[in-house]
Amino acid sequence: MIDEKTKLDIRQKTLEMFEKAHIVLTDKEKEEIEYVDEGLNDIYDLGLQIVVYVNTDRVCAKEICMLPFQTCPEHMHPPVDGKEGKEETFRVRYGKMYLYVPGEPTKNIKARLPKKYKFSVFHEIELNPGDQFTIYPNTMHWFQAAEEGCIVSEFSTRSTDENDVFTDETMVRVGK
Amino acid sequence: MIDEKTKLDIRQKTLEMFEKAHIVLTDKEKEEIEYVDEGLNDIYDLGLQIVVYVNTDRVCAKEICMLPFQTCPEHMHPPVDGKEGKEETFRVRYGKMYLYVPGEPTKNIKARLPKKYKFSVFHEIELNPGDQFTIYPNTMHWFQAAEEGCIVSEFSTRSTDENDVFTDETMVRVGK
Repeated sequence: MIDEKTKLDIRQKTLEMFEKAHIVLTDKEKEEIEYVDEGLNDIYDLGLQIVVYVNTDRVCAKEICMLPFQTCPEHMHPPVDGKEGKEETFRVRYGKMYLYVPGEPTKNIKARLPKKYKFSVFHEIELNPGDQFTIYPNTMHWFQAAEEGCIVSEFSTRSTDENDVFTDETMVRVGK
Repeated sequence: MIDEKTKLDIRQKTLEMFEKAHIVLTDKEKEEIEYVDEGLNDIYDLGLQIVVYVNTDRVCAKEICMLPFQTCPEHMHPPVDGKEGKEETFRVRYGKMYLYVPGEPTKNIKARLPKKYKFSVFHEIELNPGDQFTIYPNTMHWFQAAEEGCIVSEFSTRSTDENDVFTDETMVRVGK
């Protein structure tokens, strides 16, 4: 659980980021922002804030807000109930995001690796506003906001976060 | 075919709209904007400008720009090759859009009906920034930008525009 003081602080900073990015949210969306900390109570280091625009059987779209140096832990999207895993495209709208995927490990990665958690893929992709990258199913990935934070649109198939497979066994994603 | 002078004018106005909406596009995306006029050479009245961010077998995301009073003609997305038709969510980012779907016809609709083309559904939905609406397959719909134009994100399943079914038989969507 995220305590109320932390949630209020994160909420305030998140709304400021959306304003800076000129992303318009309804009052209901602002109330329903998801504060994702994977059950670790360490959201400033490991976590992100999500506004889900739509999540039907076929299509999902979200806006992701990450404060400076917040990290989304390493995970992948496996098949669920015999259906292909989630496919997702990240498009940076504001700020900068470092995304890590399988491939030749980048020397001296720019993310500040949170040493208390496990990571296994280190091929770095730097995404600035207007840049995007598609993650296909079964592909390990993690990402971190750079020093100014970032706002990132995610376009994907149906989102079922409770099926995510994490590299670090301490993560417990609580699906909505 | 849209003549070069018209395309240059529409391009200039489209880029200005994206700037006003604070939507960042890459130079490549700016070059590849699609100017959709359904083969009618009447794009100021009937047409729209599209940036396709991603269009895989499963997911499509676009940014749509409509200049003041531009209209997207009435159409629907039928099944293709035994697969469900396209599902799409429109989310207004900037400006205002009037969307028309089946249902109780709205009296005195706010769109300026282009009288030279056919329309059959008149249930009006007004979408302002932060508002969105999902169109499921086989649902007739058309839309028009209000007086300040609009920028609209579209989140959908795979886009195969060449399969669209139009109400007006003069339309010839040329798929990319």
